[in-house]
Amino acid sequence: MRLQLNCDMGEGFGIYQMGLDEHIMPYIDMANLACGFHAGDPLTMSKSVALAVQHGVAIGAHPAYPDLVGFGRRDMQCSAEEIEAMILYQIGALDTICQVHDTKVHYVKPHGALYNTMMRDEITFKAILKAIQKYDTSLKLMILASGKNPYYQSIADDFGVSLLFEAFADRAYTKEGSLVPRSSEGAVLHDVEEIVERVKSLTASKTLKSIEGEILHLNADTICVHGDNKEALSIIKALHGLNHAL
Amino acid sequence: MRLQLNCDMGEGFGIYQMGLDEHIMPYIDMANLACGFHAGDPLTMSKSVALAVQHGVAIGAHPAYPDLVGFGRRDMQCSAEEIEAMILYQIGALDTICQVHDTKVHYVKPHGALYNTMMRDEITFKAILKAIQKYDTSLKLMILASGKNPYYQSIADDFGVSLLFEAFADRAYTKEGSLVPRSSEGAVLHDVEEIVERVKSLTASKTLKSIEGEILHLNADTICVHGDNKEALSIIKALHGLNHAL
Amino acid sequence: MRLQLNCDMGEGFGIYQMGLDEHIMPYIDMANLACGFHAGDPLTMSKSVALAVQHGVAIGAHPAYPDLVGFGRRDMQCSAEEIEAMILYQIGALDTICQVHDTKVHYVKPHGALYNTMMRDEITFKAILKAIQKYDTSLKLMILASGKNPYYQSIADDFGVSLLFEAFADRAYTKEGSLVPRSSEGAVLHDVEEIVERVKSLTASKTLKSIEGEILHLNADTICVHGDNKEALSIIKALHGLNHAL
Amino acid sequence: MRLQLNCDMGEGFGIYQMGLDEHIMPYIDMANLACGFHAGDPLTMSKSVALAVQHGVAIGAHPAYPDLVGFGRRDMQCSAEEIEAMILYQIGALDTICQVHDTKVHYVKPHGALYNTMMRDEITFKAILKAIQKYDTSLKLMILASGKNPYYQSIADDFGVSLLFEAFADRAYTKEGSLVPRSSEGAVLHDVEEIVERVKSLTASKTLKSIEGEILHLNADTICVHGDNKEALSIIKALHGLNHAL
Repeated sequence: MRLQLNCDMGEGFGIYQMGLDEHIMPYIDMANLACGFHAGDPLTMSKSVALAVQHGVAIGAHPAYPDLVGFGRRDMQCSAEEIEAMILYQIGALDTICQVHDTKVHYVKPHGALYNTMMRDEITFKAILKAIQKYDTSLKLMILASGKNPYYQSIADDFGVSLLFEAFADRAYTKEGSLVPRSSEGAVLHDVEEIVERVKSLTASKTLKSIEGEILHLNADTICVHGDNKEALSIIKALHGLNHAL
Repeated sequence: MRLQLNCDMGEGFGIYQMGLDEHIMPYIDMANLACGFHAGDPLTMSKSVALAVQHGVAIGAHPAYPDLVGFGRRDMQCSAEEIEAMILYQIGALDTICQVHDTKVHYVKPHGALYNTMMRDEITFKAILKAIQKYDTSLKLMILASGKNPYYQSIADDFGVSLLFEAFADRAYTKEGSLVPRSSEGAVLHDVEEIVERVKSLTASKTLKSIEGEILHLNADTICVHGDNKEALSIIKALHGLNHAL
Repeated sequence: MRLQLNCDMGEGFGIYQMGLDEHIMPYIDMANLACGFHAGDPLTMSKSVALAVQHGVAIGAHPAYPDLVGFGRRDMQCSAEEIEAMILYQIGALDTICQVHDTKVHYVKPHGALYNTMMRDEITFKAILKAIQKYDTSLKLMILASGKNPYYQSIADDFGVSLLFEAFADRAYTKEGSLVPRSSEGAVLHDVEEIVERVKSLTASKTLKSIEGEILHLNADTICVHGDNKEALSIIKALHGLNHAL
Repeated sequence: MRLQLNCDMGEGFGIYQMGLDEHIMPYIDMANLACGFHAGDPLTMSKSVALAVQHGVAIGAHPAYPDLVGFGRRDMQCSAEEIEAMILYQIGALDTICQVHDTKVHYVKPHGALYNTMMRDEITFKAILKAIQKYDTSLKLMILASGKNPYYQSIADDFGVSLLFEAFADRAYTKEGSLVPRSSEGAVLHDVEEIVERVKSLTASKTLKSIEGEILHLNADTICVHGDNKEALSIIKALHGLNHAL
């Protein structure tokens, strides 16, 4: 068993560039591609899909709130039916572009504020599940791995949707299995060796040392990596090497 | 043989309403549904698809330039690859929403300025054909019926795409088979009986009297009707009756 | 003393129409004009300003969150500096259009979700006040009249900004001076005579009967009226007549 | 006499960065700031204005067609009244942000496709002039210096607007005083010394060697420099040094 590396990609917009997509694509397993609402115009999406196909990377839809200027990072009070419709719209647009590149959308990972809201608000979580249920239950939904995995999976089961749980290699966790908020000291890890060790531990024994030093059990299917700077690229390469050594 | 009635529908946006969709849908055969670029947010699209399904109306994608404030009516100098990508994006978004309503996109009719540019600019026409070729050649492309139908079809043949030719029941034609520009006197017809007679003639003998009074041969598969006022509704009902009497 | 009538106006967008602006403008005192973020493109703004000038109506800026598809009615988690900048941008755009019509923006009334957030979140309220303080403290800020008027005015005083308090003629109030939520029975009044009586009472004695039947003291400078249907127009005409009889 | 250096700045959008604004601002005289339609959200505008003020740089409004995804580089068929309104909206938004930073908009330079259309289409040129005439005739309009300067100035005189003519230091000119199209060989110059020599010549004698080698007379008030790469920065520093040596 090895943990897949997933990364947000295709987040340019028009002439604006974002992320080191061409450098990172060779080292990841799953690319979360923006669908036009927070980033990613049609042409950028087309190029991103082509790049993913070239490197054999699985494509995930990365739908967001309609907030270009806020990059989908600002929470918006959308109704369940608005969320369901916007998720379908975005998945569909990307899936069609995938189809003309002889591939398909493999999973869905909500972006930014929509992701955070999904984790804390059951109405939003269910609206997303309903969209997937209606479209194609072979699409998995990626959410945050935590001590509450079974809770989320039990809800998803009602919609016939499988979940993918993602862990963050470079983030500290509380002993309850939640992310330590970025505002707290020690929330973000920078040491490549330490990060690799944590992923090894997650992979081999599904355990992680919490920020308080206790052993935390965490079931994860995939590791989320970042792709927007050179340090991130080093981490990705190290984790990629680890995966290939397994 | 009878001529199908097609109508632009689903052109609201958010809380903005446009057109008498609920009154018109029962009387038409083909609904050209906006896809979010000139009108038609995801929720509006979802409701429009449901309405079309309810009345057994075939759904066409009605993609446009990205110009909400101009309602897609302003020409935009887009490259061939931009047009191809934006067409795929819009068809895909709508087709997914169709799929969850157990239907599909049946054809494509570009909207507004994109339609006009397609008719006069071969690069644009080919970019649209290419998008359809890549996605699904069972989708037909709707264009303006004129004396140049064979010219357009010969180009479309290179892409394996079938064309649907539409005529305008309420517009005068030149003897060459072009629309008389709206700015000219007599360009738009208002008399319901006259309009019905013209459609009868188009249906029975593929002929139409030109504005100069000569007999014009015009091959059309469908009649474009308008849906934004009560006069238009009367015309639609009359043409619907005609069709059902055939 | 008479209570000014204020109404949201200029809320069309491109070809989309909203509200009975031409019919209502003759009867109101203050027009809250959309500034492009929830409605109101530049050309619509220009026409709305011209209409207000024609009828001698004072113009207020009606800035909103950047959410066209949601008509600015969905709360967005914006930072204080984002709010300050977007308020200035919108006021400025409108004020320039006013200037070329030989008038100016007289006051600011935040729209929709931004208005509601301002009333409950001090950070948002202060960000709006700061924008006005920096631009022009002769602009008043319109907020909801309630039992907490002094609380809001004390904060506004720190920014040197005067407040305008608005009451709703067609809404029931609790005895604490808050609006009865729309979801509660009796929240919205429809009887024109009753509405006129309430405004008379508000004007003459600054009192209103609460939904529980108690006398409520409410200090209001202006009455908010709606302009999107014929019933609303009747109410406006009745209140206009009342004002002119005073 | 020295030629002012003008540069497009503030062209980020949300989290997207564009250009080396912080490195370039110290060396230029005039910053053309995006106003939200092709780039430049309110917060970016606010930061850009602050940066310009810090370095004593004159601020110009850089209005554009409403085309974020195309960065304002695609021609849009807008009516004269649409252009006039969108110019006023954009100037006004920026001018208000300037005002709260104790400065003002000093001139107007249309961006991208709007600039190109203005140069070849009199209706567009006049719509822009009319917007400036109505707002503030102390604002100058920056256009392309060419052999046709007197033609443009004669039109601008009808609106009471002064023009600023800009030359491109790094572009070859035909003997008629037009820019050699980018698609032609030798259209863009890269040698810093050659560029500096050309600007010296333009400054001292208002002459330039055309691509065919003939002496061309060109009246320019300002030199347009680019700010999006390191080579560009070297050119700017060299021209800045030249100016300060004069």
